[in-house]
Amino acid sequence: MVVSTINGTSPLSHSNGTTIPLSTFSRNSFVNVEKGDPVAFRPYWEKVRDECTVEIKGDEWMSYLGDTNNLCWYMVPQMRDAILRLHNVVGNAVTKDKFLVLGTGSSQLYQALLYALSPSESSHRPINVVAAAPYYSEYKDATDILQSRLFQWTGDAALYDKDEPYIEVVTSPNNPDGTLRVPVVNSGVEGKIIYDLAYYWPQYTPITDQLDHDVMVFTFSKCTGHAGSRIGWAFVKDIEVAKKMIRFVQLNSIGVSRESQIRAAKMIGVICDGYKNLKSIESDHLFFDYSKRLMKERWEKFKGAIEKSKVFTLTKYPTSYCHFNMDLSEQYPAFAWLKCLEGIKDGESYLEKLKIRTRGGGRFGVDAKYVRVSMIGTEDEFIELCTRLSNAKRE
Amino acid sequence: MVVSTINGTSPLSHSNGTTIPLSTFSRNSFVNVEKGDPVAFRPYWEKVRDECTVEIKGDEWMSYLGDTNNLCWYMVPQMRDAILRLHNVVGNAVTKDKFLVLGTGSSQLYQALLYALSPSESSHRPINVVAAAPYYSEYKDATDILQSRLFQWTGDAALYDKDEPYIEVVTSPNNPDGTLRVPVVNSGVEGKIIYDLAYYWPQYTPITDQLDHDVMVFTFSKCTGHAGSRIGWAFVKDIEVAKKMIRFVQLNSIGVSRESQIRAAKMIGVICDGYKNLKSIESDHLFFDYSKRLMKERWEKFKGAIEKSKVFTLTKYPTSYCHFNMDLSEQYPAFAWLKCLEGIKDGESYLEKLKIRTRGGGRFGVDAKYVRVSMIGTEDEFIELCTRLSNAKRE
Repeated sequence: MVVSTINGTSPLSHSNGTTIPLSTFSRNSFVNVEKGDPVAFRPYWEKVRDECTVEIKGDEWMSYLGDTNNLCWYMVPQMRDAILRLHNVVGNAVTKDKFLVLGTGSSQLYQALLYALSPSESSHRPINVVAAAPYYSEYKDATDILQSRLFQWTGDAALYDKDEPYIEVVTSPNNPDGTLRVPVVNSGVEGKIIYDLAYYWPQYTPITDQLDHDVMVFTFSKCTGHAGSRIGWAFVKDIEVAKKMIRFVQLNSIGVSRESQIRAAKMIGVICDGYKNLKSIESDHLFFDYSKRLMKERWEKFKGAIEKSKVFTLTKYPTSYCHFNMDLSEQYPAFAWLKCLEGIKDGESYLEKLKIRTRGGGRFGVDAKYVRVSMIGTEDEFIELCTRLSNAKRE
Repeated sequence: MVVSTINGTSPLSHSNGTTIPLSTFSRNSFVNVEKGDPVAFRPYWEKVRDECTVEIKGDEWMSYLGDTNNLCWYMVPQMRDAILRLHNVVGNAVTKDKFLVLGTGSSQLYQALLYALSPSESSHRPINVVAAAPYYSEYKDATDILQSRLFQWTGDAALYDKDEPYIEVVTSPNNPDGTLRVPVVNSGVEGKIIYDLAYYWPQYTPITDQLDHDVMVFTFSKCTGHAGSRIGWAFVKDIEVAKKMIRFVQLNSIGVSRESQIRAAKMIGVICDGYKNLKSIESDHLFFDYSKRLMKERWEKFKGAIEKSKVFTLTKYPTSYCHFNMDLSEQYPAFAWLKCLEGIKDGESYLEKLKIRTRGGGRFGVDAKYVRVSMIGTEDEFIELCTRLSNAKRE
C-alpha cells in the first residue's frame, strides 16, 4: 500500500470501481487470496447490468428517516420488502414474527448485537463472547477493540467451561472452513446465540432447512457479491433486543445509507423476478443457478490442483438435499480451508514462498498448518492460484 | 411510532423518500422541531435534480476496496477529489498535508476518533471526554454506550479540573446554540482536541478562517442536506491517528457505502461547478447562495415571532466578514437556542403544550429553561412553528 497524504500523488483506480482484469500474472506478482472480496459474481451482474441500473435524482432520499412506521426507522420500505421477498424465494429463514434490523454490513450488526445481548446493569462482569475454532478472524478484534465492560472475547467455544453468561457466535456455513455448525457450548448457564448466516445461500451450500433462530444475521456482500454497498440485516425475535440494536446503529452511524438500500432492493428484485419468471428465461440468467455453477466449477478445478500438489488436504463436505434447487448437492464454500501435510508447520509462510497470499490458521484460533484461501476472487486470480498450487509438489 | 413485526401492516412512505408536504397542520398535530433533519434545502435540489442524477449499473462498485493506493482504502478517488475541491471552493479548512478519513456519517468518525486518540496501553485509566455545555446531546451516549475502558464521558469542559489526559470536543458553530467555539479546558496536562465542524459552511456562518487544526470533522448531511447518505469525513494531521481510525471503520462496518460516495461526489461536483461558472448562471442556482438566503429569511421570520411572543430570548450572534461571500454577515445557525423568560422553568414542557416538540436543555447539559429548535425542517413546519410561537404570549 502506498501511503500518501491527500496532496500526494495517488494513481486512480478504474473510474467505475471495476478492477481491470490482469490477463497474466508475472512470476513475481502475488496471487492475493487472503481477503474475501466477493468479486467472482461480477460477470453475472455484467450480463444484467442494465436491468439492475438504479437512478437517484438530486432531491431523493435526503432525510435521516426511512420509514417512521417501522421500528427500524432508517430502513426504507423497499429494502424491507426486498429482504423478505428474497428469503421467501430462497426459503433459508423463517421471517414471520421477527423484527428486521438493518445494518451497515453485518459487521455493524455484530457490534449492535453484542451491545443488545449484554446485561445492561453495570454491576455485571463483561459477558463472555465465544465461537468454536476455527472462527472468523475478525470476531476477536471486533469484540475487543473498545475494551468494553459489557462484553469480552473469550475464545474457542469448545473450550468454554465457565459458569458465567455467554454469547456464542455460530457461523454456518462457517468462515473459514465451510462446515455446517450448531452451538457447542455445554455450560450450566444459558447462553445467547448469534447465528451468522452470511454464507447460507444456495451457491455455497444446499438449503436444507428454513432456519428459525432468535437471532440470525445475513449480509448482502456474500449473497450477491455487492460488498461495496455495506448492507446487512438481522432477524430478531425479541423486540427489546431489536430496539437496543437500533439504538446502537443510531449512535454509531445514524442509520444506513439510503443509496445502498435502494440499490440493494433493486438487485434483490432482479434476482427474485428471475425465479418468478422461471420458465421464460435462460437458467444462466438466474443468479443462484449461475453462481452455484461457478462455485462448483471452481471447486472441481481447485480439488484437482490440490490433488496434484500432494501438499495439502481439504475439508470434506457432506452431500445434502437442497430444497431450493431440488437436488442433491455438495457444498461449495466461499473459502477453502487447507491443511498442510506433515513437514510444513506454517502454511501461510509456505504459500507466501509460492507467491500466494493467504490467511494462516493462527488468525482463526487454530494451528498454523491451516490456511484459508478465498474461492470468490476474480477468475484470473483463481486460475493462477490453481496453477501455482498444482505446482507446489515441485517445491 | 407504530411498532409492528415485519409481517404486521406498515403504511408505506412516498416511494422516493420525499415527504409529502402537509399543506395545513391541524390544531392537534405537533410541529416537530426536535430533530435536526436537514430537509430545508430540498427545494434547491429539486431545481437541479436532473443534473444531479447518478446512475449506478449492476456490476459497478462491487468490491470492498475503493482505492488501494490510498491509506483510506475504502474511499473512492471521486469522493476524495470532491471533498478536496469543496474545501478549496469554500475555503473553510486547510487540507494540505493532512490525511482524509471517510466515515459512515460523522457519528462513526466520532467513535473512530475516541478510539484513535485514547492511550492504547491497558494500564491507563479511561481518557476523559469533555465538551463545553451546552454540548451536542448525543456525545454522552455515543461515548458511553459500550462502557469502554479506553474513554469515558466526563461532561462539561468548562468544569474540567482533573490533572488527567482528556479529549475536548469543540463544535463550532456549536450545536445547539450556534456560537463559535474555541477550546476551554485550562488544565495542567495536554489535551487532544476534536473539532466538529459540521456547521462550518457558508449558509450557517460567515467563513472567517481557513481552519488548520490537527483533527477536523465534517459531514455531508449538514453541508448539502443529504442526511440519508451517511457520509462524513475527517482531516487528520497524524498518520497514526488516521490509521487507527481506518482500522476502527474496518472493524465497525468494513468501509463506507460506495453508492453514497458516488452520489455525494456528484452533488459536491454540481455545487463546485456552479461556483466555477459563476457568471454564467443565476445566483439562485448557486447552492450556498440559495441556502444562505433561505436561512436568513427563516431567521428574520423567526426573530419576529420570538419578539411577538415575549416569552423567550434568543442567543445574540456577531457579524463578521465572510471570505466566501465577500460580505459582512450574521450567523444563521441550523438550530435556534431559546431561553425562557422568568416563570417558565421547563421550556420543553411549555412548548409541548403549544404542540411544539423541541429538545430541552437537560439533554445538552444545561438548565431546562433552554430549548433547541430546528431551523432546517420543511417550510410548512417552519411557518407553523413561527405562527405558534408568535401566539405564545396569549397562553
